[in-house]
Amino acid sequence: MSDNSTFVLKTIGLINTPYVESAPYQPLEENDKEFFVVIDEEYVEGLKDLSKFKYIFLIYILNKLNREPDMGVIPPWGNGKTVGVFSSRSPLRPNPIGISVVKLKKIIGNKIYISGADVFNGTPLLDIKPYVKDLDSKTDANNGWIEDSDDLEHLSLHIRGIPHDY
Amino acid sequence: MSDNSTFVLKTIGLINTPYVESAPYQPLEENDKEFFVVIDEEYVEGLKDLSKFKYIFLIYILNKLNREPDMGVIPPWGNGKTVGVFSSRSPLRPNPIGISVVKLKKIIGNKIYISGADVFNGTPLLDIKPYVKDLDSKTDANNGWIEDSDDLEHLSLHIRGIPHDY
Repeated sequence: MSDNSTFVLKTIGLINTPYVESAPYQPLEENDKEFFVVIDEEYVEGLKDLSKFKYIFLIYILNKLNREPDMGVIPPWGNGKTVGVFSSRSPLRPNPIGISVVKLKKIIGNKIYISGADVFNGTPLLDIKPYVKDLDSKTDANNGWIEDSDDLEHLSLHIRGIPHDY
Repeated sequence: MSDNSTFVLKTIGLINTPYVESAPYQPLEENDKEFFVVIDEEYVEGLKDLSKFKYIFLIYILNKLNREPDMGVIPPWGNGKTVGVFSSRSPLRPNPIGISVVKLKKIIGNKIYISGADVFNGTPLLDIKPYVKDLDSKTDANNGWIEDSDDLEHLSLHIRGIPHDY
């Protein structure tokens, strides 16, 4: 066992979304609804030049949990299969940290307008990082156990949040 | 200002790298050196099916800092330019969280062997998430302010950690 270190992190802003009762499993690019991040005033200077990036990482606390983390989870895309929590994006993890890659639309003052984020309204933000194509876009990546699905093409529509009627 | 919430997170393991005195700015795929993550035994079950992914996110605490965070930083790739801290991957941020996308080589027990990670030996790990191609690989991403460089091609070698002699 590693040392028992704990770390105290603080909210730097809030993520505003239309999701109050339920949220999608992954970011959907819903252009008809408003999604924005509000940064605490003391951090606004830290946004300089961010708008030059097309995508950013949001790092946040998954604070709407009502169950304890479990080492095994049953993801929505797995046909009932149980996978390890670290093989999933489940919010029920030892540290309830979430990350999402979202499209940056514009920044006005302390508001960052983004494409759809798969989080509840009022989610506490911990950090923003630029998504740097040369570092973060791995074109030879795969979809792991998700590829075991019998119907990967259909599943891929769910994952990418593309509406479909079958 | 948002509410003053703070959150306590805990170490779930440690990242082992050859970097003791200095670390590269970004992950290099150094196949001649050993990089691995050791997960605390209580979390090993959470690794089930992870090895099906080619890439994973490591989320960790940047705990080797000796300066206070600043809203403006001068990144190594910016020709002396100052950018906002959230437009950079600088470790000197309001919350010292780091994320790296690394290649997963193999998992043996509680050890995850990975390609090069740009962190110091003994870095405390907070979370592991699968890098899911359909979610996380944005092929239309850009390199933001980094593209303002006069010599982007050269800079890109630095960013991607590709050795070169000019």
